[in-house]
Amino acid sequence: MRLDELGEFGALARLIRDAGALRDDVILGPGDDAAVMRFTGGEDLVVTTDAFIEGRHWREGWLAPAELGRRLVAANVSDLAAMAAEPRWALIQYGMPRACDIAELEAIQSGVARALEAEGATLVGGNLSSVEGARWLSLTLLGACSPGLVWKRSGARPGDLVGVTGSPGRAGATVRLLERLGVDECASRFSLLLDGFRAPESRVAFARALAAADGVSAAVDLSDGLAADLGHLCDASQCGVELDLRSLAPDARLEAAAAFLGIRADELQISASDDYELVLAVSPGSADACASLAARHGVPFAIVGRITEKSAGRVLVDANDARDWPAGFDHFAR
Amino acid sequence: MRLDELGEFGALARLIRDAGALRDDVILGPGDDAAVMRFTGGEDLVVTTDAFIEGRHWREGWLAPAELGRRLVAANVSDLAAMAAEPRWALIQYGMPRACDIAELEAIQSGVARALEAEGATLVGGNLSSVEGARWLSLTLLGACSPGLVWKRSGARPGDLVGVTGSPGRAGATVRLLERLGVDECASRFSLLLDGFRAPESRVAFARALAAADGVSAAVDLSDGLAADLGHLCDASQCGVELDLRSLAPDARLEAAAAFLGIRADELQISASDDYELVLAVSPGSADACASLAARHGVPFAIVGRITEKSAGRVLVDANDARDWPAGFDHFAR
Repeated sequence: MRLDELGEFGALARLIRDAGALRDDVILGPGDDAAVMRFTGGEDLVVTTDAFIEGRHWREGWLAPAELGRRLVAANVSDLAAMAAEPRWALIQYGMPRACDIAELEAIQSGVARALEAEGATLVGGNLSSVEGARWLSLTLLGACSPGLVWKRSGARPGDLVGVTGSPGRAGATVRLLERLGVDECASRFSLLLDGFRAPESRVAFARALAAADGVSAAVDLSDGLAADLGHLCDASQCGVELDLRSLAPDARLEAAAAFLGIRADELQISASDDYELVLAVSPGSADACASLAARHGVPFAIVGRITEKSAGRVLVDANDARDWPAGFDHFAR
Repeated sequence: MRLDELGEFGALARLIRDAGALRDDVILGPGDDAAVMRFTGGEDLVVTTDAFIEGRHWREGWLAPAELGRRLVAANVSDLAAMAAEPRWALIQYGMPRACDIAELEAIQSGVARALEAEGATLVGGNLSSVEGARWLSLTLLGACSPGLVWKRSGARPGDLVGVTGSPGRAGATVRLLERLGVDECASRFSLLLDGFRAPESRVAFARALAAADGVSAAVDLSDGLAADLGHLCDASQCGVELDLRSLAPDARLEAAAAFLGIRADELQISASDDYELVLAVSPGSADACASLAARHGVPFAIVGRITEKSAGRVLVDANDARDWPAGFDHFAR
């Protein structure tokens, strides 16, 4: 049934029904003017928000509605992972056209609810607005962290090593393949990349264990591209950085995509966005412990550079040539 | 300078600069992956979110950018007031076209920051996305309430009286006048209504004092229209209600608008939306205390009906005729 047949309050009732089970600390969940949660003292509250815009973050058919919900959660979860915080509660906002079918919203919402549940988190509220033009979704994710354990972007110091989780570049490569090939051909020729794009993994458990073990001096969510996000970390930390392209793990899936797209795989690794991974500044003495903790959590992890003095600038080290530090994804760049 | 000239990160740097002073309990404000706040135990966390869509909540020229920011805050603050909660921290999201000038965003943001500051609250983060088509803004507001003091929609009982703050109908009347007359003529002929629309008042201090004094059994934010929001309260409380139109205070400003628009003033009072006021279910013994507390806070307050058994349904009492219970604003109604 279309939203304008069901009406706002009929639609909200359906969405509230699909919000999933509530955490025990939720005193008042969706359906009132606000949500109420019991927050015991001794922890800090950590909050982030991120929006998905149709045409930029997804296009028709790229993602099943539940996968779209899952990716939206992943984008926010990776912000909390980059703080070493534990996700707990979320609010979802939908900007949807009047002709949208409630079944589609329910499917998005079930994807959101399941992805939150996998984190031990709960949907506690939200909002539904009618829009003309591009649809959008927005999630606000609330979590907690022990005081003093939170990772900031600003803590990196010269001599720290730079670690990165996952396989940077794959999400951005997949977006380019989807744009070039359309969804069906992308699915048949690059199914593993597409599968990964549709089901990003959470780095929260790894981050929480790593924060407890100490050794990380700064962290940033990898979402604008490795070089760009490392640049954000260096801006906040007032440091320079040396990123060694030779230390990026070879990635056969990415190389196949790069060959098809006619670009270098390492360009994707350093510049492509939307990976929802972590970039970490690690003290040299902790790099081995960090790598073995990653292995124990099944998280791909590599040391790919080191933090330097600010005066040394930002340097890409390559076997063959010197390269300019690339710009990352910018919503407003022309 | 246009957003696509400045770039996302240049624009964010400007907006972060304009976010205003931080509360002392903010450990990490705008600019990192998430915001971090110290939340001492012994209180409950209360969270709401509300979006404004261009074309629906505002049109070009209706509101100066700072007034738009102020109204967005007011819409969210009234949700927390309806919980008797205290606003503390907020995240703002912008969906803006690439051609948008940063000066306009900065002006919106200064309105948001000032309106939050008046509540003792702080902007701690946000997000900036590019959109094609209608612009939108979204705020998530976090606050706190002592356990057990929070007002829910579901607590009303037969015999409770229904109170309402402010002058219901004025905001919706102003929207209709703006649509009909345009902003210049509306400003010259209905300046006091337009002034009120541009600067909605907070009911938080009144709500907090009233919650401490006890006597309110249920509350809802007045934003979809008095009859509709009272209906939400009755749905949640499993009650009926009798709304006595004769007890609605005569409102000369509203009557002038109604006469111009060719509709009855009491239609606007019961059906028009966007007032950001409070609807309260009050135990009969507390009605006088409630009224004098309202007077002390300079808040217009009237008892306009009473809660009944669910079987009695929803009744509009009028000197002349019986009327159907009206529908409220619905984002998706045709």
